[in-house]
Amino acid sequence: MTTKVKVAIIGSTGYGGVELIRLLASHPLAEVTSVISSSSAGTPITEGYPHLTSIREELLDDVEPAAIKAKADVVFLATPAGVAAKLVPQLLEAGLKIIDLSGDFRLKSPALYEQWYKKPAAGEEYLQKAVFGLAEIYGDRVTDVPFVSNPGCYPTATLLGLVPAVKEGWIDPATIIIDAKSGVSGAGRGASLGTHYSELNENFKAYKLNQHQHIPEIEMVLSDAAGQPVVTTFSTHLVPMTRGIMSTMYANVVGGRTTQDFIDLYRSYYEGRRFVRIRPEGQWPTTKEVWGSNYCDIGFAVDARTGRVTIVSVIDNLVKGAAGQAIQNLNLMMGWDETLGLQFVPAYP
Amino acid sequence: MTTKVKVAIIGSTGYGGVELIRLLASHPLAEVTSVISSSSAGTPITEGYPHLTSIREELLDDVEPAAIKAKADVVFLATPAGVAAKLVPQLLEAGLKIIDLSGDFRLKSPALYEQWYKKPAAGEEYLQKAVFGLAEIYGDRVTDVPFVSNPGCYPTATLLGLVPAVKEGWIDPATIIIDAKSGVSGAGRGASLGTHYSELNENFKAYKLNQHQHIPEIEMVLSDAAGQPVVTTFSTHLVPMTRGIMSTMYANVVGGRTTQDFIDLYRSYYEGRRFVRIRPEGQWPTTKEVWGSNYCDIGFAVDARTGRVTIVSVIDNLVKGAAGQAIQNLNLMMGWDETLGLQFVPAYP
Amino acid sequence: MTTKVKVAIIGSTGYGGVELIRLLASHPLAEVTSVISSSSAGTPITEGYPHLTSIREELLDDVEPAAIKAKADVVFLATPAGVAAKLVPQLLEAGLKIIDLSGDFRLKSPALYEQWYKKPAAGEEYLQKAVFGLAEIYGDRVTDVPFVSNPGCYPTATLLGLVPAVKEGWIDPATIIIDAKSGVSGAGRGASLGTHYSELNENFKAYKLNQHQHIPEIEMVLSDAAGQPVVTTFSTHLVPMTRGIMSTMYANVVGGRTTQDFIDLYRSYYEGRRFVRIRPEGQWPTTKEVWGSNYCDIGFAVDARTGRVTIVSVIDNLVKGAAGQAIQNLNLMMGWDETLGLQFVPAYP
Amino acid sequence: MTTKVKVAIIGSTGYGGVELIRLLASHPLAEVTSVISSSSAGTPITEGYPHLTSIREELLDDVEPAAIKAKADVVFLATPAGVAAKLVPQLLEAGLKIIDLSGDFRLKSPALYEQWYKKPAAGEEYLQKAVFGLAEIYGDRVTDVPFVSNPGCYPTATLLGLVPAVKEGWIDPATIIIDAKSGVSGAGRGASLGTHYSELNENFKAYKLNQHQHIPEIEMVLSDAAGQPVVTTFSTHLVPMTRGIMSTMYANVVGGRTTQDFIDLYRSYYEGRRFVRIRPEGQWPTTKEVWGSNYCDIGFAVDARTGRVTIVSVIDNLVKGAAGQAIQNLNLMMGWDETLGLQFVPAYP
Repeated sequence: MTTKVKVAIIGSTGYGGVELIRLLASHPLAEVTSVISSSSAGTPITEGYPHLTSIREELLDDVEPAAIKAKADVVFLATPAGVAAKLVPQLLEAGLKIIDLSGDFRLKSPALYEQWYKKPAAGEEYLQKAVFGLAEIYGDRVTDVPFVSNPGCYPTATLLGLVPAVKEGWIDPATIIIDAKSGVSGAGRGASLGTHYSELNENFKAYKLNQHQHIPEIEMVLSDAAGQPVVTTFSTHLVPMTRGIMSTMYANVVGGRTTQDFIDLYRSYYEGRRFVRIRPEGQWPTTKEVWGSNYCDIGFAVDARTGRVTIVSVIDNLVKGAAGQAIQNLNLMMGWDETLGLQFVPAYP
Repeated sequence: MTTKVKVAIIGSTGYGGVELIRLLASHPLAEVTSVISSSSAGTPITEGYPHLTSIREELLDDVEPAAIKAKADVVFLATPAGVAAKLVPQLLEAGLKIIDLSGDFRLKSPALYEQWYKKPAAGEEYLQKAVFGLAEIYGDRVTDVPFVSNPGCYPTATLLGLVPAVKEGWIDPATIIIDAKSGVSGAGRGASLGTHYSELNENFKAYKLNQHQHIPEIEMVLSDAAGQPVVTTFSTHLVPMTRGIMSTMYANVVGGRTTQDFIDLYRSYYEGRRFVRIRPEGQWPTTKEVWGSNYCDIGFAVDARTGRVTIVSVIDNLVKGAAGQAIQNLNLMMGWDETLGLQFVPAYP
Repeated sequence: MTTKVKVAIIGSTGYGGVELIRLLASHPLAEVTSVISSSSAGTPITEGYPHLTSIREELLDDVEPAAIKAKADVVFLATPAGVAAKLVPQLLEAGLKIIDLSGDFRLKSPALYEQWYKKPAAGEEYLQKAVFGLAEIYGDRVTDVPFVSNPGCYPTATLLGLVPAVKEGWIDPATIIIDAKSGVSGAGRGASLGTHYSELNENFKAYKLNQHQHIPEIEMVLSDAAGQPVVTTFSTHLVPMTRGIMSTMYANVVGGRTTQDFIDLYRSYYEGRRFVRIRPEGQWPTTKEVWGSNYCDIGFAVDARTGRVTIVSVIDNLVKGAAGQAIQNLNLMMGWDETLGLQFVPAYP
Repeated sequence: MTTKVKVAIIGSTGYGGVELIRLLASHPLAEVTSVISSSSAGTPITEGYPHLTSIREELLDDVEPAAIKAKADVVFLATPAGVAAKLVPQLLEAGLKIIDLSGDFRLKSPALYEQWYKKPAAGEEYLQKAVFGLAEIYGDRVTDVPFVSNPGCYPTATLLGLVPAVKEGWIDPATIIIDAKSGVSGAGRGASLGTHYSELNENFKAYKLNQHQHIPEIEMVLSDAAGQPVVTTFSTHLVPMTRGIMSTMYANVVGGRTTQDFIDLYRSYYEGRRFVRIRPEGQWPTTKEVWGSNYCDIGFAVDARTGRVTIVSVIDNLVKGAAGQAIQNLNLMMGWDETLGLQFVPAYP
């Protein structure tokens, strides 16, 4: 009989945390042994999440590194910006493996973090230690490392859609424009006018234009792929739906490539990576077609009239954009098949 | 190594059919070997359902009993009213086990079927042969039978909420009023003004008052539980959401029972049945708390002022109300644990 | 040229307040001369409500009775429970006419108010002074009075659907069951988990069963209509939409009346009242069919099998259920045609 | 007493038609004297649109030019592509003034029409006769003409957001990228999988990339403003909501203009035009902030890092994008104030 890897979740009462609970419930080699919440420690998680009735009835644990280590081998951090920066040193010290779903360790420059996040950065030593786990691009760097920084939701959809073309020099990186749209769950469970039903339903809004904290994360990877600094226009919009992100991306095509050329390039680039699905010509993915699953689906349209390509990339922001990719990183860290426990069929309709 | 039971799905391009595909994809003892659609035979199922890209790429089969038998042991029928009535005799003849998700074999009286469905009934011999598979009530009748008729979505939510109280004589069956609400997916994938987005969004409507074809199915089981004929008021409403049913039910309480009495009775009645979850006092389940799962959650409120109990019962109409309960019936027919392949955590939010 | 009546709105930054602004903008005989908010006084209303850009650019006033009187003749109170109780004495003192949209003055018994609202009641003298302005039932009492208490949203939909039948003795009041559903705007603009988009979208929930503070208001009017004390079962549900209320109501029919009998009775009862529309047999109104308008639409279904009638009544909770009926009461107080400034066609789709 | 201008609506049973009915119901100088539908002639419009109960109870007329002329002076055509092309010659012949809401007369080149609409074009003589009524740009051309072609919904939002900057040479027209999003009502009332609730709810999709028939209309006006041929990238997306369009537009800024420069330019360009509202720096309009109204709201964000401007423009597609602007054109044709009968406050929330 297999002994399962023991997993703890800090931030269990946020949407990222409960999604980890949902997905890990059927993982064949990992089990959640501690659900942790500093704000609700000592109460049952079913109080805030009755959908977990009879599934997880235990009380929430508090954030105590030694106690966590006694119960678990790996810890997921699904906490608001600024929290992981403080906890990670103690957790590493306690000998835990870490997968951090927040943005605290994605950027390698403290100055850049502080500019975009408006918060003190984590210690530089720890920033350097964290491996950026964009699985299909940097997955090979994750194996056997103790500390992975899980990518943001917008960057995941965006970068999986752009990296192959940028790497091959098929698009001019200076012309990239990214128009991204997200469901409301990306804003988390905190109650505010910005997440109020009556304000969002039957409404479509743009927000944080040119100011979103995912911009430097996107530019970091694009620059790496291009081999030169890339600066981009990245816009975010809120869609009246709960889950799903679409990035619609535009760039000037280099060298007269066609839609089918792009399809072929991406199919070849992502060969063997089960969670990226490249759509045939004339078909663009919709967010619902990946709902509840770890897929990232990508479609293309090259326009001969304008010489531009439009790339459409979709994910479920809570799965591939958060909890799902985090588990994919767990699988990679452990040397397991990256799809383990993640082969959910999208829930449609 | 286990040999899996081979399963075919007739009506694969309807919502019930694709939900069977989704759920069965992770079943440990069953595998889908043929997806069948009379209207789309010969085309890939991904044409109409791109979310199945890379998951099920094969072409849809046609409805040919012998060919089905060559590929499968069990067949699910997820077809519109009237279709199963015609197919079942040939499929039984071919030696297939059958689980019919339509309403064609739920009522045992041809006259009653024709009165409510406005269609010719199936042959009486076959009506008698079909076992009504309301799993938590009649599950023991299903073991080893070759032909199960899967309950309707509204009856499932309603009857699981009413049967224990009716059976025990705790409510007066003559006073039962059922106010039911459903998401739009219950109406199927057919395009009509009645399923048009702009007509349903930001709208709430009542329909088929006193005329819904699930009324006789509900009364059949209530009468059985009461030991006397029961006639009920049953109303249906359309909610601007895709999945979910709530039945809010009212009845006069007999013998001064309290909310806690009801909770205790139901917990005892459903002991050991994993898919029914009885909520504590003061908590009523919402439809999203069972979204994507096979749970039926039930809550109670006894009002001393009026002497009435209000019972709230929710399911995901495509899972517990259709494909999930059908697989539960497969499990029961095969003598397996009824929860096999069905332990999905509700997707929340 | 006509001099318009000057109107002030206290609570302008709530949904009731902005809806008053929207509706009064085209009133031929009234104009809003002061928009008031104790919490946001001194800031422009467009800060919180950019949709009013170029329409109302002035700063919000504070709540000062003398200053209000200097600017206005009539004041609408669209404030949370408990606020009007304190303000009304001063406003009456200042010589203002008052229409209170809150629940503070609807019940005539302080004890009843405190039992259901869990707050101190207004002074009994003022409770007696306030005329309950359910326009189509008690409209004649409103003419020329200085102080009107505007009915609740649920009571409006419910009572317009029940009063004629109760008054005529066509239904047994002891058997009335009211299953009500509301859009989320009824909960106001306050941010909480209970109004969070991701928690409500694709969700349907029951709440406050047997405990809603509108219960005594409904029973007050039903008792008046029946000529005897009436106790009812009243349930409330939240629908994933912004506006709209439907009350589905059940009762035992007395004397064998048919659906058409009910239609005829109600058409006769509401003759000349433009805002109540009785639907023909076989047609039940949907909430969207009154969206943005002051209509209350009502349909019927008598079931010979059960001897019960189902009555479906819909309103826009922010219009007929709040701001619209308040303006209707203004019209009645002033002796104007009750439809003045309120003849909005429902916005469909 | 004023005699009102008599107005007929062809295509009354489409969403554009019923919106004309809604808006014209309160127009001070025009009245609808005939509601026309070739498909439903002889039946009451309330059959398909119960929300018009007691508002418009008459039977639908058939499309007969002479009969229309007997009842009306002006006719609105709210018909599917291809219908107006056939009807307009007869209606002009009958002496009627025409406002055509379809795309049949917007493009001046028959070849271009046939390339993008895949239908036979209208006669070139009539194409030339039709004045393109983008009110805030070409409004002065409309006065006193007998035949106006009303702009498309996407072009209205897009062009009002781009024309001033293109005209002034503040943005490089070769770099313009338009990412547009629309609610579902833009697809009309026809039932199809593409308008099916369960397919669209909780879903966001891209469609017709580089192929939308509004592209040549947008390029026609941009070329006119630029004084040189402009080719653009224009993408369309479907948002799970009923009404509303947002165009998010990107272009390289010429000459170092700032956000405030753009705001000042647009405020000056649209001075005196009540229906365009320019938002202050840091504020971008949302679709709900114009819901049900004739406003087009525009916001800006210049990014010094990239040298690009992002322009956000929103309208209600059924009002400013169809019926509202058509009435605005009626007002202009008649020499009336363009705001007559159109001063609706947006319905928020």
